[in-house]
Amino acid sequence: MTTQARPVMSLADIERFLETEFPQLHTDGRQFTALDVGPGSVTMRLVTDERHLRPGGTISGPAMFTLADVACWMTILAQIGRLPMVVTTNLSINFLTLPKAEPLDCVCRILKLGKRLAVVDALLHQGEIGSPVAQATATYSIPPRPSAGATGT
Amino acid sequence: MTTQARPVMSLADIERFLETEFPQLHTDGRQFTALDVGPGSVTMRLVTDERHLRPGGTISGPAMFTLADVACWMTILAQIGRLPMVVTTNLSINFLTLPKAEPLDCVCRILKLGKRLAVVDALLHQGEIGSPVAQATATYSIPPRPSAGATGT
Amino acid sequence: MTTQARPVMSLADIERFLETEFPQLHTDGRQFTALDVGPGSVTMRLVTDERHLRPGGTISGPAMFTLADVACWMTILAQIGRLPMVVTTNLSINFLTLPKAEPLDCVCRILKLGKRLAVVDALLHQGEIGSPVAQATATYSIPPRPSAGATGT
Amino acid sequence: MTTQARPVMSLADIERFLETEFPQLHTDGRQFTALDVGPGSVTMRLVTDERHLRPGGTISGPAMFTLADVACWMTILAQIGRLPMVVTTNLSINFLTLPKAEPLDCVCRILKLGKRLAVVDALLHQGEIGSPVAQATATYSIPPRPSAGATGT
Repeated sequence: MTTQARPVMSLADIERFLETEFPQLHTDGRQFTALDVGPGSVTMRLVTDERHLRPGGTISGPAMFTLADVACWMTILAQIGRLPMVVTTNLSINFLTLPKAEPLDCVCRILKLGKRLAVVDALLHQGEIGSPVAQATATYSIPPRPSAGATGT
Repeated sequence: MTTQARPVMSLADIERFLETEFPQLHTDGRQFTALDVGPGSVTMRLVTDERHLRPGGTISGPAMFTLADVACWMTILAQIGRLPMVVTTNLSINFLTLPKAEPLDCVCRILKLGKRLAVVDALLHQGEIGSPVAQATATYSIPPRPSAGATGT
Repeated sequence: MTTQARPVMSLADIERFLETEFPQLHTDGRQFTALDVGPGSVTMRLVTDERHLRPGGTISGPAMFTLADVACWMTILAQIGRLPMVVTTNLSINFLTLPKAEPLDCVCRILKLGKRLAVVDALLHQGEIGSPVAQATATYSIPPRPSAGATGT
Repeated sequence: MTTQARPVMSLADIERFLETEFPQLHTDGRQFTALDVGPGSVTMRLVTDERHLRPGGTISGPAMFTLADVACWMTILAQIGRLPMVVTTNLSINFLTLPKAEPLDCVCRILKLGKRLAVVDALLHQGEIGSPVAQATATYSIPPRPSAGATGT
């Protein structure tokens, strides 16, 4: 099954890719790092600074959205290779509890990897994945590829 | 943590509750059954008949929506008790691959169980949970309760 | 702009199409009818019977889901022609207030009509569109067409 | 009907509120401004700078998410008054076409304004609202109020 295949990018590949293709992620210092990559799965971490915080010491919605979107996108690219033209078509995020002003991890797994569409689930947590602070589901459009092995839409 | 607490309804309780409170689910025979209940989790099965099928021998979108909604709702009630006034406020469903004309299982787990809102994730599959045919996230409004132990919204 | 183009199906075309391609919609009598079709827009009505109702005299969630999905799907086909292989990839529905046991109208308008994806917005109301009982946004995958005029994904 | 009532905040009130309660929106200069306020509706504009742009001269997803979230939130507060503890519980955004590196307007209207939940629809466009670049639907939790006139959940 496609979503279980071995990824084609390593952790080091992901870090290098984000630096070269996505430099604006790091304009305020290195805040987003990849922690883990596996079959159909990537985990990324946001190390928050003041720019991501809100009154009361909680992480802002846009910071959580950014983490979920980058991590889901990298999960697809880790699986199919460097295709920057994979674009988000929908992202639905549920804010479950107020996060603390601490590092935030985002665990992603592919739900579908088709020829034209991919759907990824993301759980954002701060140490206890059974008590997530947010959950997101994101859909991506994949441009036509010469030799796509995947089937279906 | 609330979502890990022991459920207050057993499998037999769930079956009895659906029969008495939700008889219209069974107007065409017993199609929806509970397979499993655990801390923050319920699995239900739809045994399809012609009414749920579409040309090409696939299960209709409304049948999958119904399964996801009933199963997520029962997941909350199994945790907090018989409160029929828990109502769906949002359900977002991703149709991933065309299901076969075979029984369809829906595995639900609670993402958040607050005083006023609950969020539940559902994976619909036909034997291989790593290759789901659909995924849904549903939000429910919980009416005020005398002695709700949960905190937050 | 694509979403403003004149539809290629008339009201009569839509009714005939639903009868021939979607007979299971009418197994319990004619419940779904098209009321209006215009550039990038279709309105359909559900005339409820006991099968669609819930205790308290309200319309069930699955009945509202079905109306939204059929109406959004017809909105795309009315614009691009009879392509039954247009399939729903996501439908997110917000249940806003409990509907009455009365006819329910669903007003759809196309937000995007691309070569491969279409997004449609639906408002379900019972006489007053400013007080909708539900709102849905649905995404559809469009199969490759020989001479698609639309651009983008 | 609640969603049609006259707003309690003027354009000047909104601008002042954002400056005092939400100063982090303006850390890089005044980028988000309110253009219009009416019954159940607010329009806000994002004047983009380099921080919001992506390679190819398009506006980033997080910038569009931020605009939609702030504008929907202000739409509720304009209607019910200064209650900073109104928090986003879900935001689902559809990215429809790539925006240009130009000002982006977000037109919001309330779909539901209950005692405990509000749902707002947002269309993001660049001059032609019939050709939106993105659409979002957002849900907010409203804290208990002493004298809430709204009914339902």
